Amino acid sequence: MTLQDYIRTIPDYPKPGILFRDVTTLMADKDAFAAAIERLAEPYIGSGISHVAGIDARGFILGGALARRLDAGFIALRKPGKLPYKTLSERYELEYGTDELHMHVDALKVGDRVLLVDDLIATGGTAGAGASLVQRSGADLIAATFLVDLPDLGGSARLRDQGISVTILIDFPGH
Amino acid sequence: MTLQDYIRTIPDYPKPGILFRDVTTLMADKDAFAAAIERLAEPYIGSGISHVAGIDARGFILGGALARRLDAGFIALRKPGKLPYKTLSERYELEYGTDELHMHVDALKVGDRVLLVDDLIATGGTAGAGASLVQRSGADLIAATFLVDLPDLGGSARLRDQGISVTILIDFPGH
Repeated sequence: MTLQDYIRTIPDYPKPGILFRDVTTLMADKDAFAAAIERLAEPYIGSGISHVAGIDARGFILGGALARRLDAGFIALRKPGKLPYKTLSERYELEYGTDELHMHVDALKVGDRVLLVDDLIATGGTAGAGASLVQRSGADLIAATFLVDLPDLGGSARLRDQGISVTILIDFPGH
Repeated sequence: MTLQDYIRTIPDYPKPGILFRDVTTLMADKDAFAAAIERLAEPYIGSGISHVAGIDARGFILGGALARRLDAGFIALRKPGKLPYKTLSERYELEYGTDELHMHVDALKVGDRVLLVDDLIATGGTAGAGASLVQRSGADLIAATFLVDLPDLGGSARLRDQGISVTILIDFPGH
């Protein structure tokens, strides 16, 4: 099964010149969704992952399924104002301005073994913030995994430059 | 396993007098998360669910895991401005003002058998909008399922009054 064929490309979204990679069509197909979760999980089966940390919001869909597949707990990394208890936060750069990612202060502890997941990595700002939150908790960040990489935007290379193990299912060269 | 014990109650959040039921502590515990997904799935195993429709954003965590458990596809019901393709939308009432829920126009088709899921049902505004979106697509809404019900706020009763089958894992009487 070629998972790439299940991703819809929407031209000029969210603005002219951008090809948006829409993963909702892959997730809606039960066989493609099953294959994606199996392939994302495969490198980590038996590696003692205790928690899957999913990034708000499409990372939650993959993360919930991956947590069950790896018999792990699920941790939410969220936009500001969405978590009800005390949080750690990490600021990151956007094209214009900055944003923040939050995690509950007691979500992870020393010795936890964490797999970070999101649907797509582009410039890697959000994923980098997520990785920092996991590492600041004292847990071990075992790897980060993404359904789609836009490698020309450099995010996956930047994570690897920081010594983070990264696995990817689908590459879309170009933007 | 008493799943209720894994839910953290946060007093006076998001405003004075409200007891917020925080399900992130349940999801972070691998055994509680596994038990929750098994119990949510159990009534629907073998009932031919083709798609699980999860509500933005905590419904995505449960929905992704449930879709795999039931060997179904996953459909995202999202806040405005989050889905890249053409959408159906449904407006619903908040305490102050209104909000909207969106679904891709081609996410479901006649004959699809859909399980709607969210982490919590209170007044049922969002869930009611999600149910309407599924029904407007021509698909069959088989049931709606929630990890937590706040029955005194009336949402689960309202869905049942509309002829929708509802299953609940945990009730918190009061608000």
